[in-house]
Amino acid sequence: MRVTVPILLGVGALSLTPTAPSPEPLRGFTTESSRVERDWETRFRAIPDPARMRSMMERLSARPHHVGSPYDRANAEWLRDQFRSFGWQAEIENFDVLFPTPKERVIELVAPTTFKAKLQEPSLSGDPTSGQHDEQLPTYNAYSIDGDVTGPLVFVNYGVPADYEELERHGVSVKGAVVIAKYGGSWRGIKPKVAAEHGAVGCLIYSDPRDDGFGGGAVFPNGPMRPRDGVQRGSVADMPTYPGDPLTPGVGATKDAKRYTVAEAPTITKIPVLPISYGDAEPLLSALTGDVVPDSWRGGLPITYRFGPGAARVHLRVKSDWSLKTLNDVIARLPGSSETDQWVIRGNHHDAWVNGAEDPISGLVAELEEARALGDLYKQGWRPKRTIIYAAWDGEEPGLLGSTEWAEAHADELRQHAVAYLNSDTNGRGYLDIEGSHSLEKFINGVEKDVADPEANVSSWKRNQLAAIRRGSAESRREAREREDLRIGALGSGSDYSPFLQHLGIASLNLGYGGEDEGGIYHSIYDDFYWYTHFSDTAFVYGRALAQAAGQAVMRLADADLLPFAFANLAETAQRYATELQQLRDRRAMEITERNREIEEGLFAATNDPRSPTRAPATQARAPQLEFAPLLNALDSLTRAAQQYEKAYSQWVDRSGVTQAGAASASTLKTINERLIQAERALTTQDGLAKRPWYTHLLYAPGYYTGYGVKTMPGVREAIEQGEWSTVNGEIERIAAALTREASLVSQLAVTLAGAR
Amino acid sequence: MRVTVPILLGVGALSLTPTAPSPEPLRGFTTESSRVERDWETRFRAIPDPARMRSMMERLSARPHHVGSPYDRANAEWLRDQFRSFGWQAEIENFDVLFPTPKERVIELVAPTTFKAKLQEPSLSGDPTSGQHDEQLPTYNAYSIDGDVTGPLVFVNYGVPADYEELERHGVSVKGAVVIAKYGGSWRGIKPKVAAEHGAVGCLIYSDPRDDGFGGGAVFPNGPMRPRDGVQRGSVADMPTYPGDPLTPGVGATKDAKRYTVAEAPTITKIPVLPISYGDAEPLLSALTGDVVPDSWRGGLPITYRFGPGAARVHLRVKSDWSLKTLNDVIARLPGSSETDQWVIRGNHHDAWVNGAEDPISGLVAELEEARALGDLYKQGWRPKRTIIYAAWDGEEPGLLGSTEWAEAHADELRQHAVAYLNSDTNGRGYLDIEGSHSLEKFINGVEKDVADPEANVSSWKRNQLAAIRRGSAESRREAREREDLRIGALGSGSDYSPFLQHLGIASLNLGYGGEDEGGIYHSIYDDFYWYTHFSDTAFVYGRALAQAAGQAVMRLADADLLPFAFANLAETAQRYATELQQLRDRRAMEITERNREIEEGLFAATNDPRSPTRAPATQARAPQLEFAPLLNALDSLTRAAQQYEKAYSQWVDRSGVTQAGAASASTLKTINERLIQAERALTTQDGLAKRPWYTHLLYAPGYYTGYGVKTMPGVREAIEQGEWSTVNGEIERIAAALTREASLVSQLAVTLAGAR
Repeated sequence: MRVTVPILLGVGALSLTPTAPSPEPLRGFTTESSRVERDWETRFRAIPDPARMRSMMERLSARPHHVGSPYDRANAEWLRDQFRSFGWQAEIENFDVLFPTPKERVIELVAPTTFKAKLQEPSLSGDPTSGQHDEQLPTYNAYSIDGDVTGPLVFVNYGVPADYEELERHGVSVKGAVVIAKYGGSWRGIKPKVAAEHGAVGCLIYSDPRDDGFGGGAVFPNGPMRPRDGVQRGSVADMPTYPGDPLTPGVGATKDAKRYTVAEAPTITKIPVLPISYGDAEPLLSALTGDVVPDSWRGGLPITYRFGPGAARVHLRVKSDWSLKTLNDVIARLPGSSETDQWVIRGNHHDAWVNGAEDPISGLVAELEEARALGDLYKQGWRPKRTIIYAAWDGEEPGLLGSTEWAEAHADELRQHAVAYLNSDTNGRGYLDIEGSHSLEKFINGVEKDVADPEANVSSWKRNQLAAIRRGSAESRREAREREDLRIGALGSGSDYSPFLQHLGIASLNLGYGGEDEGGIYHSIYDDFYWYTHFSDTAFVYGRALAQAAGQAVMRLADADLLPFAFANLAETAQRYATELQQLRDRRAMEITERNREIEEGLFAATNDPRSPTRAPATQARAPQLEFAPLLNALDSLTRAAQQYEKAYSQWVDRSGVTQAGAASASTLKTINERLIQAERALTTQDGLAKRPWYTHLLYAPGYYTGYGVKTMPGVREAIEQGEWSTVNGEIERIAAALTREASLVSQLAVTLAGAR
Repeated sequence: MRVTVPILLGVGALSLTPTAPSPEPLRGFTTESSRVERDWETRFRAIPDPARMRSMMERLSARPHHVGSPYDRANAEWLRDQFRSFGWQAEIENFDVLFPTPKERVIELVAPTTFKAKLQEPSLSGDPTSGQHDEQLPTYNAYSIDGDVTGPLVFVNYGVPADYEELERHGVSVKGAVVIAKYGGSWRGIKPKVAAEHGAVGCLIYSDPRDDGFGGGAVFPNGPMRPRDGVQRGSVADMPTYPGDPLTPGVGATKDAKRYTVAEAPTITKIPVLPISYGDAEPLLSALTGDVVPDSWRGGLPITYRFGPGAARVHLRVKSDWSLKTLNDVIARLPGSSETDQWVIRGNHHDAWVNGAEDPISGLVAELEEARALGDLYKQGWRPKRTIIYAAWDGEEPGLLGSTEWAEAHADELRQHAVAYLNSDTNGRGYLDIEGSHSLEKFINGVEKDVADPEANVSSWKRNQLAAIRRGSAESRREAREREDLRIGALGSGSDYSPFLQHLGIASLNLGYGGEDEGGIYHSIYDDFYWYTHFSDTAFVYGRALAQAAGQAVMRLADADLLPFAFANLAETAQRYATELQQLRDRRAMEITERNREIEEGLFAATNDPRSPTRAPATQARAPQLEFAPLLNALDSLTRAAQQYEKAYSQWVDRSGVTQAGAASASTLKTINERLIQAERALTTQDGLAKRPWYTHLLYAPGYYTGYGVKTMPGVREAIEQGEWSTVNGEIERIAAALTREASLVSQLAVTLAGAR
């Protein structure tokens, strides 16, 4: 039997022994529905089972299971059957996508000495799956164009635009050269893109041991780090232009979809690319002559790192099988009881580059245990208001293929019905990393407070708060202590949330634990069950914690009376972005002025070292003042609307505490909820971003020159960064218009909610 | 024939073709005497000859010439004879000092595997002097105590106090251990001192290739960098306590001086120490187990750097010949014409660890060419007002022995007569690096403007200004552009200025070019003529520039009517130090408060990683507020006095322009000059610094835990840094009293100068 709050408070007031205070109602719940929800969540948290996660990981990572492989299909069928056994409706949905697999791969030093790269990861005794050579994809970068090139070798550090400025200062050109870049500093696909923009004819990408090898610890199998011959596979398609099947941007890659030819596909690289190990890189880098690189460019090999070019010439040949392959997305549903047409979507991919125990199985097994637990609750009588969709995506590794094609194929339905998308991918020990839509920041902070950290005797929220204090500046310490919610990061790209958030405008979150263990098996044959169960979350207790966190988030979104969006944090965060952009403009203006002054002063000539000469940079046009007013006005409106909404929300909570059923009628709430899920859509634009219309979200996008790394308010930020001053004011206006729409929507919702009885 | 200024101006005013403006008179000269001085300096600058420097370097570095060696004596005699041939009075002055040389040296890994360090630098074909094994000092650290110890090995990064805090956080103790530290991060003598304070029984110091090896370029003989078996020799006596002969602190090590026994000498290390190459270090470091070190600790060897301790045990044996050796200081004089009792002193050492082409011969040959040029001018009729003393010191390498014993032996005379001490040591290509007394900052800026950079078409001053703009923050760029003088650094230790500046209170400067070439031959057998003439100032044009800079400085100090001290820059710099100290106190207070709060919040427990556990630090006592008022008042007085002096000075210059002979009588100027040279003495205290009374200067000292690195206002700064709060107010008062004395002296000088006719 349950008692209502006034009675409980009465008892407490009269009693001589104090009782624990009744917890605040959960965001979006009435006092009573919150109590019910908490009961179900308590039962839910008890179900996910580390032992089951371990055995599922063993099964799912037993053989290589990349797109198009037999074990990819076998896993999909097994996953579908698992969901069914948990009581879900589950199907496999297929798409036909371009996924090149390698036929020829050659890298050789042809002068001044010769060396042929082995391009092969050896199997290790003791690691049973590392020897499955017949089924393993060779080391390669998917969507490298075919090519056969020879040229002088040039070392380009991480191969990002700033590195080419440094090369230019040293008088080093990559025209006609094969460049060699370290992994890191950007998403890998940026490296061949920038290299090609500067005239290179080929690109090698290697894992340097300072960043990813013995520098950080013992190498596999003695420790978790990347061994000498370990290679990072990965896609190099131009994902910042669009992810998914290169042949079918914007539409699902169904049998009869209209397709580009391979030659037309704009996201395939312009020059051939191959990834290599530091074992293969060392003889190439050792052959370089020319000036010694700056300190910050140096890696961990026992050599002197130099720019080149010199006598060292490299031959690179890449040829792929460009046939279409079939994707197997597993889609499972638990139907909603009342708001059947509001969908809460959760996903994790199931495909891997090879065995993929960490990436993606460590995240997938958490998702599976959530699904089993939700199925259990369902059998016990729990009925989510909203429909829950759990997806196990195929083809994430080559470029978010499974999620993107599904999202594109179901775009209209999703725009109408999707409440939110919750993603996970890999998982490890440590801290719950959360990124996503800031309208969900308050909500997910609430979830995080209700998950216990498996190692420390505190919640995951508390541990994150203390870590923010430990790592932070004075200002961020103050904020971590005083702000009600911990900040969540904005989403760039790199996993399956992109099509939901950035193409369709569905509020999204990405969750995963990590930060305590280092590893060096990413996208190699060594990312396997042996590695994971020796060096990562070996007891699968963080797997359970992830299941608890993500599962509770799904439950709250599915059960809430009022969807738990909150706009004050969004407004405040957007205000911070605007401030950053103003500062960025001022900093760029100052840098340009300063640089031009230095050129005029003769600084570069006077400080030139004739033994290692550098060139003066070119004078740049001065930065204009920008018209930020529309953006600032829109932010003011959004801030006011968010305050108005919060006021209406707390009145609703107060009223809901007085009556058992809550203060608003079900139909009013349904109307409000239907409009609440459109709030993230309001932040998108039909035209999409300049140069890349697939990306429609005006607040969050992967950087055009960073790849995974987010650019917030990307239209403005990237125009300033790239000095495209003439476009900035127009981009400011687009964002201002979106924020004004958002403010208007939130303000209307506040009025409706305030009037709701 | 010379014309006076009024006539020249008249001609200029009437002429239609403008003439170049007459240069400002040199600081401390009248318009007329400045003109004469500039004429002599023009002739002076033409004399130093790169070809002669090259051949002198070849001669002086032809054989090893460390303290006590036959070639050390031969060089001293040759130097004496050179000075004599230039027209100087020159003698060799001897002292008998403790200088241990090695008899036994062993380092072996005794468990879990065995390895014996070779402790030997191989000779290189093509480098003729590297094979002079019979005369070379073996690789060792002078003033290491004898010892024979075995213990577990622990890696301590640079071995400075902060590194031991990190070890403590990881639960690693060095009690009973042999530590291995990288060279760098502090003066080498700090490493065994701090290791012994923490209970270590032995200390190895090695050159890591990231800091000093292949990381920065090709290794010798293919390039300038340290080869695999190259070793940095060097003293490890506790120089921050006192430099010079460990047996005779404060007095000259003459035959009959009262001496400590070796056992009593406080500056000999408490534990045995040996330096090793990275070739010898690699097997030792590879044998370490335990946690992986933080990123910032990692070096450039292709291994995983770990803390230890573990199974790796090291045996270290050191035994030295502790007999006294004879120093040969070469002292040359050019007598002054009128102010014979005012001495301008210039020095560079002549002893080396081995052949020492760079250290110290590159500086010494510049000094020799200055001496030859001054001798030439003397023959042409130039007569310096003041006596000039040129010294070639012996025993700098073991611990400033020659300069310290000479300064101690002649302390009374020097306190009375020394105007200033100008030091140099090594020299290379690039930028004129100047450090020293801030009362000479304005003067030396003037000298620097009159030396042409050999590579860039600007003066050394202009090149330094542009480099400061290139490297600096916005604030330091602004200052470099707007401040009349470029700032000079304060002197810590590491060369022969220490006894003059920090023991006797003689205004000092240290000059040397550098910053363009890297090298890795410091204190090894490869610092030789072959290396220098292939990889450093191969044309000796920066040698000539150093001779021009230092020689002109000597001439101006020797010839000036009024000694060119200026106190406004000193007052401003001391004010900056005071501000830094207030900020340091506030920062420490905030750090302590923050740290204590974090301990209370349970931050360290909650963010502990059980697989790589760390300990919470201990709570610290809160920092008290400090009584800075006396210091700030003293600085106000000094600032006012300095302004008053500058006003009197410009009136003197103006008056001197009107009459040919200058406006003040010779006797008044003599009185003023005699008191001006006491101005630096006023900044010292008879009691010396706490814990190290040999150091008497209250503004500048080498850091007790940095060695070479300066601590300005050391009594206060080190007390704050080390949390010795109870002593700080007393130290503030000592500095305030000295600055008040200085203010009073400067103010009196201003009055005298204003009244001088």
